[in-house]
Amino acid sequence: MSKIFFRNLEKEQAGYTHALDKVIAELNYDENGLIPAIAQQFDTGEVLMQAWMNAESISRTLASGSVCYWSRSRNKFWTKGRESGHTQELKELRVDCDGDSLLVLVDQSGPACHTNRGSCFYIKVENDKVVITPQTRPRL
Amino acid sequence: MSKIFFRNLEKEQAGYTHALDKVIAELNYDENGLIPAIAQQFDTGEVLMQAWMNAESISRTLASGSVCYWSRSRNKFWTKGRESGHTQELKELRVDCDGDSLLVLVDQSGPACHTNRGSCFYIKVENDKVVITPQTRPRL
Repeated sequence: MSKIFFRNLEKEQAGYTHALDKVIAELNYDENGLIPAIAQQFDTGEVLMQAWMNAESISRTLASGSVCYWSRSRNKFWTKGRESGHTQELKELRVDCDGDSLLVLVDQSGPACHTNRGSCFYIKVENDKVVITPQTRPRL
Repeated sequence: MSKIFFRNLEKEQAGYTHALDKVIAELNYDENGLIPAIAQQFDTGEVLMQAWMNAESISRTLASGSVCYWSRSRNKFWTKGRESGHTQELKELRVDCDGDSLLVLVDQSGPACHTNRGSCFYIKVENDKVVITPQTRPRL
């Protein structure tokens, strides 16, 4: 576990740097080698979806500029939009304080959700019910 | 597995409802009974942190209006801010298309991160380095 690596970062001042390779190696992957990745539209701030990455999909994303997840259901790399055309252009990648979550700022082409909704988070709790909401993201 | 339950929701029109208890029961928890929860500041859109909930912490959050996670490191319920005072008032709870991720819209009091930064995602990739960024969230 690499909790210690990230604990040492906590007190660092803004502007301090570390080698990317080292940080990718030290991330706190789960027992399947995966880490949650949150995709957020870079300009509107809308949270589009949450999926999973492994070290190799992080590297592929950074090398290509096109977001690549690991699909748990299909057990293979999943370059977002390769089949649907609804790609995610990488704008920025951030790591959280404990090294156990990623925030991926993207420019989403078309709807992020496989249901053709703008965001995957279209099911909203209202009192003792959940409600299917309209398309949350205005099409740009 | 309750993938089928959520698959049936995909084609529903906006405004369609389901019982909350049923949806909480059908969520796709992992082998530890947990589901990722993304906390987003409701008005600025900033992604503050990502933590984990189980069915009981979802219920506690909805009943109290104060966000309660399950702490994997301490193996107990974790009402955010109970010790630090940096509470999260629940504004809205959303579920994703597959029932395997939660988006928690909150009003964060004080810094969300235990390092006293506004957001936990303060480590930013820049080319072959990561950089410690300044406080990302302007204090309101």
